[in-house]
Amino acid sequence: MTRSLPDLDSLSLAEQVAQMVVVRASGYLFDHQIQYPDWEPPAAKLQYWLQHLGVGGVILLGGSAGELALRSQQLQNWAKIPLLIAADIEEGVGQRFSGATWFPPPMAISAIARKDPSIAQHYAEQMGAITATEALAIGINWVLAPVVDVNNNPNNPVINVRAFGETPVEVSQLATAFIRGAKAYPVLTTAKHFPGHGDTATDSHLDLPVLPHSPARLAEIELPPFQAVIAAGVDAVMSAHLLIPSWDAELPATLSKKILTQQLRQQLNFAGLIVTDALVMGAIAKRYGANIAPVLAVEAGADILLMPVDPEGAIQAVCEAVASGRILPERIRASVERIWQAKLKVRRSGGEGNLTMELAQPAAFTTVANILQETQLIQGSVPLQLTPTGSNHLCNLIVVDDLLARDFLGQYTPAIALPSKLGYTTRLSDCHTPPSDPTLDEASCTLLQLFIRGNPFRGSAGITQAAFDLFKRLSRTGNLQALVIYGSPYVLEEFLPLLPPEVPCIFSYGQMPSAQATALKLLLDI
Amino acid sequence: MTRSLPDLDSLSLAEQVAQMVVVRASGYLFDHQIQYPDWEPPAAKLQYWLQHLGVGGVILLGGSAGELALRSQQLQNWAKIPLLIAADIEEGVGQRFSGATWFPPPMAISAIARKDPSIAQHYAEQMGAITATEALAIGINWVLAPVVDVNNNPNNPVINVRAFGETPVEVSQLATAFIRGAKAYPVLTTAKHFPGHGDTATDSHLDLPVLPHSPARLAEIELPPFQAVIAAGVDAVMSAHLLIPSWDAELPATLSKKILTQQLRQQLNFAGLIVTDALVMGAIAKRYGANIAPVLAVEAGADILLMPVDPEGAIQAVCEAVASGRILPERIRASVERIWQAKLKVRRSGGEGNLTMELAQPAAFTTVANILQETQLIQGSVPLQLTPTGSNHLCNLIVVDDLLARDFLGQYTPAIALPSKLGYTTRLSDCHTPPSDPTLDEASCTLLQLFIRGNPFRGSAGITQAAFDLFKRLSRTGNLQALVIYGSPYVLEEFLPLLPPEVPCIFSYGQMPSAQATALKLLLDI
Repeated sequence: MTRSLPDLDSLSLAEQVAQMVVVRASGYLFDHQIQYPDWEPPAAKLQYWLQHLGVGGVILLGGSAGELALRSQQLQNWAKIPLLIAADIEEGVGQRFSGATWFPPPMAISAIARKDPSIAQHYAEQMGAITATEALAIGINWVLAPVVDVNNNPNNPVINVRAFGETPVEVSQLATAFIRGAKAYPVLTTAKHFPGHGDTATDSHLDLPVLPHSPARLAEIELPPFQAVIAAGVDAVMSAHLLIPSWDAELPATLSKKILTQQLRQQLNFAGLIVTDALVMGAIAKRYGANIAPVLAVEAGADILLMPVDPEGAIQAVCEAVASGRILPERIRASVERIWQAKLKVRRSGGEGNLTMELAQPAAFTTVANILQETQLIQGSVPLQLTPTGSNHLCNLIVVDDLLARDFLGQYTPAIALPSKLGYTTRLSDCHTPPSDPTLDEASCTLLQLFIRGNPFRGSAGITQAAFDLFKRLSRTGNLQALVIYGSPYVLEEFLPLLPPEVPCIFSYGQMPSAQATALKLLLDI
Repeated sequence: MTRSLPDLDSLSLAEQVAQMVVVRASGYLFDHQIQYPDWEPPAAKLQYWLQHLGVGGVILLGGSAGELALRSQQLQNWAKIPLLIAADIEEGVGQRFSGATWFPPPMAISAIARKDPSIAQHYAEQMGAITATEALAIGINWVLAPVVDVNNNPNNPVINVRAFGETPVEVSQLATAFIRGAKAYPVLTTAKHFPGHGDTATDSHLDLPVLPHSPARLAEIELPPFQAVIAAGVDAVMSAHLLIPSWDAELPATLSKKILTQQLRQQLNFAGLIVTDALVMGAIAKRYGANIAPVLAVEAGADILLMPVDPEGAIQAVCEAVASGRILPERIRASVERIWQAKLKVRRSGGEGNLTMELAQPAAFTTVANILQETQLIQGSVPLQLTPTGSNHLCNLIVVDDLLARDFLGQYTPAIALPSKLGYTTRLSDCHTPPSDPTLDEASCTLLQLFIRGNPFRGSAGITQAAFDLFKRLSRTGNLQALVIYGSPYVLEEFLPLLPPEVPCIFSYGQMPSAQATALKLLLDI
């Protein structure tokens, strides 16, 4: 951002409220590339929201890092007031925008912390610094990370490996290290999801989870990481769409004044931005009217309404609530002042540098490689001893949740390309393919590669029955040559007791190409 | 390009020869995104070739249009002398670089020509103009199109639907119209593959095809389109890796002086750039030494050596051939003068405009939509009458050559997304998945969607036996609800006689999302 902010007093009430709204948009440049038409507006509507309504920010998803640099410039040009541009880049910019650095999930770093907390904190700090640098390089000034939920429920379908650990101490240490790394750059950080989404077995994308814990338990497990990151200077806290009856029997955290204002603002003394989680998510959208939820959220104490179902209607509804006396103008003003503080902080941010000098730099790659290397688990004897004569019966069986949604698997990614070079036949299995044919797959000496982690929107934390059956049949027939699991350590725990002792197994927290290369170079000795 | 060309006399021999070399590079910005490591150099080597050796051009593949705009600027900045930047964008820029306009294959336009030649020529001219505009917007100044081969062999695995027709007249008219459209812009066009690759059943990516025709037959079928586009002012002609014994019993066209100089330069009086097809292709690379083929090609009369196996070695070998007297310095000088003419022509080109105002514009979309609409073939009664009660037994079975290589199929593309909305279950089938399970797929009322066209590198023009078996089983059990074929009209011809009369069938030349949408909106009435 190079333009200056207008005087806050020059804004009408509607313009002030519009600054509290962050809308979703595709990171791609063209309307025909929109992947989620229900959630992502075409250019004309987006331009209207930014130019005419003056909404305060945009959250972007999709596209390459190069495209995103152009996209964020386009959006800033459309906006009357410099925008906050946010992205869900919990695992580095490369998690969402191809070309940039892609980190393994935070839980990998917590695995290092159990052996050496200070090295783990160093990695988390590096991750924060690299994510901040790369975000700014492509025009993102608001990092929707770190996750500070304590994942103490292995069946959690939505947090899972996204958490920095399973204990409050681990999460506090690593999340504050991440913020320390990012703080050197003019970018906002966000602790999520208040007061803690780690102990739920329901996915709030689909419905409203209940956290049945007492205030004492919340103070013991869920809250310490938030207290730690607030002390470390986190810029924003994102609310969870959770019902916490011991604090508020009626309203979920996102809409609860008792939670956002009394607990977060007053008890925890948080002075930064309170942002809702996406209001289009099932937990809120299925239960509250499109223009009722935004009013409740503002009443509750939210400064930013993320992805309201109807941005224009939300602005109007909040304005009407002010006109009717339900919300005080001072309440709006206080939020916009906090937004101004945040926008002043990110004013130095650019997105006009030389991308190839700022993204995916060697130091970032070294950090990723080190984390992958140090957290890779190996059981059994590696590398495999491949007998050349049997090479026409080698099968590389890849099991993935959804082939159509994968962004880590292609013709040239290591999980496919490396075994192919050694003569393996590639076989693919997902929710859209028939169960494996015994005559084809089980007769071969099979390298089984499972890509499995928690899957938001599908409400499942782990493996499919089909994958499990496949594994058991291959084990039984003696044709399982090796097992590689990419993703969830909880899935690994389910498989390990059943693994024949002579079958080597490698586990990696990462699913991205660099994780595949690390595992397979070891396994296949190439 | 904004910089001026240096005085040709200021160049050393090695610098002159380097200008004759066009190297391949990834269109992505970062080394870790390289998909073909055998063919695409890392940044350091590429920069060395451009800055130190001074190679004259780059051919790019991969990446989004937005990334490519940044990539071409980067390459121009590295080069001492403004570069030719080429791409194989025979079906529009969107065929290779996501975000831009993606046309159906040229053979679709020839289908229109059989009904109305003047409308078809209008479309071909639009295609040329739009491709040129969009190429320039992202920094590509050399369009490696139009294909002017006459596809009179339905089993041709490599040309097939890439041709503008099956007769010399069709191809001549449409290819000249394409050039007419492009000529308004400072971009180079390329007729390929001289003297004609349309009547081969071997893929020159894999081995050397033989064209056993007499000079009289060549003059009747293969040559007229080249004569027509030369008259229309095509800037470059690309050689074919073909053996044509009636012209030269020893050397393939790419390396034959009898063909490139005597036939193309002298007989056809072509004064523009003669460019080899890629020298890394099997037809040449498997038969001639890495640094022998470039010398032979220059001797034969080529001005541009496309993708030599070893660019530095090729430059050195050609220089040595000059030093030894085998090649005259005047021969090099004449090529570089032609290259200078070409570079002067494209000097106005920029790639610094506003991409969103130049790519994927509404007029381009209308042209694509019209071509798709007018060439879509429908048999039987559409739309389908869907009975809501049976909706849990609807199956959408997608057959594609290789799921890992497809760039037209994803979670949100119409072939998947539209049937899903109506309750269809998606099933995927490709060369990596087990044959369809009868108990799962055949019991359902199945919409079968086949994506099949000629596949360079795999030496197959048509359907797999597995796809054919699937079709026959579904037909036999009465569970085939409808058939959609995207791609090859030759495949359609194989299926039509076997199609039960009550089963509707739609054929589209296009495989891209807009083709899917056009077909399914009609079939499913949504």
